[in-house]
Amino acid sequence: MTHAPRRLGRRPGTTDTKGEILAAARAEFAANGYDGASIRRIARAAGVDPALVHHYFGSKEKVFVAALDFPFDPVQVIPAIVGEGPDGVGERVVRFILSILESPDGRQRMLAVVRSVLANEQASEMLRGFVVRELLGRVAAQMAVPDPELRANLAMSQVMGMVLVRYAVKIEPLASADVETVVSWLAPTVQRYLTEP
Amino acid sequence: MTHAPRRLGRRPGTTDTKGEILAAARAEFAANGYDGASIRRIARAAGVDPALVHHYFGSKEKVFVAALDFPFDPVQVIPAIVGEGPDGVGERVVRFILSILESPDGRQRMLAVVRSVLANEQASEMLRGFVVRELLGRVAAQMAVPDPELRANLAMSQVMGMVLVRYAVKIEPLASADVETVVSWLAPTVQRYLTEP
Repeated sequence: MTHAPRRLGRRPGTTDTKGEILAAARAEFAANGYDGASIRRIARAAGVDPALVHHYFGSKEKVFVAALDFPFDPVQVIPAIVGEGPDGVGERVVRFILSILESPDGRQRMLAVVRSVLANEQASEMLRGFVVRELLGRVAAQMAVPDPELRANLAMSQVMGMVLVRYAVKIEPLASADVETVVSWLAPTVQRYLTEP
Repeated sequence: MTHAPRRLGRRPGTTDTKGEILAAARAEFAANGYDGASIRRIARAAGVDPALVHHYFGSKEKVFVAALDFPFDPVQVIPAIVGEGPDGVGERVVRFILSILESPDGRQRMLAVVRSVLANEQASEMLRGFVVRELLGRVAAQMAVPDPELRANLAMSQVMGMVLVRYAVKIEPLASADVETVVSWLAPTVQRYLTEP
């Protein structure tokens, strides 16, 4: 046991504690947004002292940044979705977003992002840079149409509006529609935005 | 002066004070969402004592309900937009929403609604009933297509996604695109959702 790696002097088990705090933080941000979330409630949900949360992350903002870890990595995902070319790109985009939102973990993380972005100008600013540069910029860079950035914005607007109505506000019947129905309606929209000459 | 009406014992001028409080409340909800808004800051912005805000409205929730007064009246607006028939309904919907969002007052009120709905389950619940019954239900009732409620949901998803990206998160270039560009892209989408057989 004395030869087990102990990088940075951490005690065994701290990684799990950190993971539990991040899980609790995600639940708290999803429930209350950025402004409404409290480190005290995060600590309580994780079964630790609030001082430990401060020790690991320093501030609510840093807990958020760490807990956020965006529900997908655009660097990995975008080549597989947009890089395959224009045929069926609308359907691939819609199916990918739905695959994230249909998993409880992905949904919680995505809704926390959306809520925080809208609740708080600092989070909005933080996400805006990430979304524009790493996500929409990468999509646009792979497209051979006029105004690729505007196309990427438009595709995002339809995707985020669906997330809002179906998963955040849960308006029926869209909230309960099956995935294939959603794909059949949204894929042509995203396809047109991304590929119409 | 002694014969001036003094209903409910209010002093002259209280109606204006109430209006000033509601204006301050709208600004505060738009800036900080429902959970982040504070009656203290609303009162300070209106130049009154917080106790007066409590006296008029009782609670932050009641300030919100009064201040919210939805940026348009669906009962008046929907017949003019959807009741005119399927031709051009997509463009009428998109132009109407843009006309609200392009006015500073309408934008502030609309964004306050969106932020509150996402930040707080109670506000979400409150708005959901209103949106489903008075807004989407009225749209669906005027449509002669299969699944009219789902169509209305889909149209709302594109419209709200545009509001989110263009006005709330302000992602470029959609945030700065002119109104005609937005109409040219979104109107066919809403038209398809509302009228495609």
